[in-house]
Amino acid sequence: MSVTVAPTVLARTLGDGWRRPGASAHALADALRGLVVDGRLAVRTRVPSERALAPALGVSRGTVSRAYDRLRADGYLVSARGAGSWLTLPDGAGPGDPPPVPGAAGAAAGRARAVDLTVAALPAPEPLLAECAARAAAGLSRYAATLGYAPAGLAVLREAIAARFSERGAPTTADQILVTSGAQHALHLVLSLLAAPGERVLVDAPTYPRTLSAVRAARARAVAVPLGASGWDLDAWDAAIRAIGPRLGLTIPDFHNPTGLTMSAGDRAALAASAARAGMLLVADETLAELRLDGPAMPPPLAAGDPGGAVVTIGSMSKSAWGGLRIGWIRAAPRLIRELSAARADLDLAGPVLEQLVAVELLARWDEVLASRRSLLRPRRDALLAALAEHAPAWTCRRPRGGLSAWVRLPAPVATRLSSAAAREDLLITPGPSFSVDGTFEHHVRLPFTLPPAELTNAVRTLAETAGLVGSATTMEQSPAPAAI
Amino acid sequence: MSVTVAPTVLARTLGDGWRRPGASAHALADALRGLVVDGRLAVRTRVPSERALAPALGVSRGTVSRAYDRLRADGYLVSARGAGSWLTLPDGAGPGDPPPVPGAAGAAAGRARAVDLTVAALPAPEPLLAECAARAAAGLSRYAATLGYAPAGLAVLREAIAARFSERGAPTTADQILVTSGAQHALHLVLSLLAAPGERVLVDAPTYPRTLSAVRAARARAVAVPLGASGWDLDAWDAAIRAIGPRLGLTIPDFHNPTGLTMSAGDRAALAASAARAGMLLVADETLAELRLDGPAMPPPLAAGDPGGAVVTIGSMSKSAWGGLRIGWIRAAPRLIRELSAARADLDLAGPVLEQLVAVELLARWDEVLASRRSLLRPRRDALLAALAEHAPAWTCRRPRGGLSAWVRLPAPVATRLSSAAAREDLLITPGPSFSVDGTFEHHVRLPFTLPPAELTNAVRTLAETAGLVGSATTMEQSPAPAAI
Repeated sequence: MSVTVAPTVLARTLGDGWRRPGASAHALADALRGLVVDGRLAVRTRVPSERALAPALGVSRGTVSRAYDRLRADGYLVSARGAGSWLTLPDGAGPGDPPPVPGAAGAAAGRARAVDLTVAALPAPEPLLAECAARAAAGLSRYAATLGYAPAGLAVLREAIAARFSERGAPTTADQILVTSGAQHALHLVLSLLAAPGERVLVDAPTYPRTLSAVRAARARAVAVPLGASGWDLDAWDAAIRAIGPRLGLTIPDFHNPTGLTMSAGDRAALAASAARAGMLLVADETLAELRLDGPAMPPPLAAGDPGGAVVTIGSMSKSAWGGLRIGWIRAAPRLIRELSAARADLDLAGPVLEQLVAVELLARWDEVLASRRSLLRPRRDALLAALAEHAPAWTCRRPRGGLSAWVRLPAPVATRLSSAAAREDLLITPGPSFSVDGTFEHHVRLPFTLPPAELTNAVRTLAETAGLVGSATTMEQSPAPAAI
Repeated sequence: MSVTVAPTVLARTLGDGWRRPGASAHALADALRGLVVDGRLAVRTRVPSERALAPALGVSRGTVSRAYDRLRADGYLVSARGAGSWLTLPDGAGPGDPPPVPGAAGAAAGRARAVDLTVAALPAPEPLLAECAARAAAGLSRYAATLGYAPAGLAVLREAIAARFSERGAPTTADQILVTSGAQHALHLVLSLLAAPGERVLVDAPTYPRTLSAVRAARARAVAVPLGASGWDLDAWDAAIRAIGPRLGLTIPDFHNPTGLTMSAGDRAALAASAARAGMLLVADETLAELRLDGPAMPPPLAAGDPGGAVVTIGSMSKSAWGGLRIGWIRAAPRLIRELSAARADLDLAGPVLEQLVAVELLARWDEVLASRRSLLRPRRDALLAALAEHAPAWTCRRPRGGLSAWVRLPAPVATRLSSAAAREDLLITPGPSFSVDGTFEHHVRLPFTLPPAELTNAVRTLAETAGLVGSATTMEQSPAPAAI
């Protein structure tokens, strides 16, 4: 019943980034360890037999065998007679612990000591959340006489979300809104309805790893459109649209995850127009849009310059308010909203009533919510940047004007090896290749600034020390620099 | 952007039940109307052109054209120049109204007058729900310092659900439980992980329509195993398992939806053993299991006789407590639970914390919850049966000992036409073919007993009168009796 990753799939997931002259078993072990450490393969994934994997990788069976031995010795692979071998983490995570998914890693019994920089998320805004939950609970009885099913969401919440879009510059009515269980659920629903297996979907490169995994889960194929150093490359988007004729393109226009870039007003208009001309739905993920910390005012939402319905916006309260509140939304043309509502019934029928009432209460005090997030985040961002300047002066990053993380460029393409080495120091980070479809971005790591300042400072110091060891150990086998922004 | 149903898909969905000597346009129109009235095709589904549909059905283009004309005249089809034709309901449901999904039909502006017997669900148990929501809201602050993500569910709820399984006779630990957003979400997640596109999945015939649509949404193929008149046909299950070698089989062992049958203890043990021998996961949907009204004690859960992990149980609070509370669960071997938790992250990351705390409070008062449901349901069931005896003495049904609905056998195979005619009287019912993969069960309708007694009595009277008209009008064209249980 366990999932075994097929040899060809594992070969594709590994890519060619690990292939270097000499020391191939060592490099293969490092690459496999990287996949499990950064969550690209789930803990407990069964690996193919040595006999099966070797031809898929074009290496000898002995190479695979030595790589597996090394992983076993380091605690990343467990084998049982008659049950094969599976990936694990060396911290003693036993059968009763949850798998390492966002927010769970730090909470799992065996990883209590680890500092988790893989998750960009904050604790709840208190006492605001408690007050809103109490008011929502008091108002629940108004809905008790109904059957409780509202696949598109409660009218009162759809109206409140529409009003917030209108305030931000994109006039919106309630029938353009579908309430979801977070942005990931929204993306899954859009892909379920609009991406057939094998269909190609345009994505930013780099982009949020769970955007890529949602595309994979829909059995669609992500086609990367590279970001430039300072923003979106509209010629590249136009060329990809012309070459592929995709039905869907996915982008993150505000405090882009992971780069932190924000799309200019002019680029928004041009990209929406390109999508409209080509009949492509452009899905704008606005999860981080409301987390501006300083710097210039935000341009209007991408949807503002799109009268024709080519832009589908997805958003969420998970980053602006709290991840434990599972409320997101889709903004689209009313006809598409109706189709998505009907399709949603096969996925999970409808969303919870009480949770939606909490969201209504939070939106009524939205300025307070955002102010509490900003006052928490600004000193944390500044602490991260200060620590980087002090402990890792050769690393570079753009100062994030919003969002939850910094995209840090390393002086060498060692991100995966750095994350593996850091994991041995109980410090978890997400290396650049997790943000790509092809294993590129080895020059980058994403560092969230969501932990308290002192923890961030300590983490950066540890990371810089670890990088010093990784960097000197790997100078001899450095490969050509991969694509970077 | 609208969904067009492909000619071959529409032909398959229609089945052959509508084909009768003569009057084929009339019969085709009736069959298409049936699909939209009972929700097997969503409102706003675009239909193929007459030219495209005719060869798929093996009829002349003129026949399709006359059927479409008739649907247009009756208000079930709308055509617009250059935009094709799409199905709709003749009650004036406009672009701003939600689509007809469970519980929404009666609430939509244009259908406020309709009596909705398509939904088997109850209002919330008050004041219990309000009290539990208030306690949960007060306890939310304990989780505010966390990031709020628990893909397998909060430990306290997993423990409470496991304890309830143990009480019911299937000893269970928390690591065997994954909390979902209802049973539909649980089924979607299981299918996402374990059913590849094109893969065959065994299902009961008849079965819950959204079980079938979840299989379709996963692009898998439902293979029906017929129920016998008094229970499961284990020889048929064994033969299907041998013939197909499926990875998954889906059944509803307790107060089966729609037949109301409950699987005997002996059959449970035998079916679990067959599944274990064949390496098939048997998914038992226990959504209605706790709604026993009277009659013999329930056998232990299917999972109780399955030490080897061949049984996966899904359950929900939607029917026992309230549909507006989106809490369900999966019980399976710990390893599979971990794999499902990891897969869930791509669908919606995790469930809401507050909602889970409400579920914990409700489970602490679960006997009260169930008692309130039973005291509501018993007189409603009795009213439905009394009304059937009085107004439709030729219709037969087994007395439901639990669950939420009766499976009523009509004296003629007119269920689809009856539901179409009833819809014109503002009475919505689900005809038998909605519960099958092949359009059979035209002798049956499912009648929930969830409305107040007086409304049920009125509805049965209207339905019996309508059936009198339908029956006499169709005697001449009666087809051979379809499969029935």
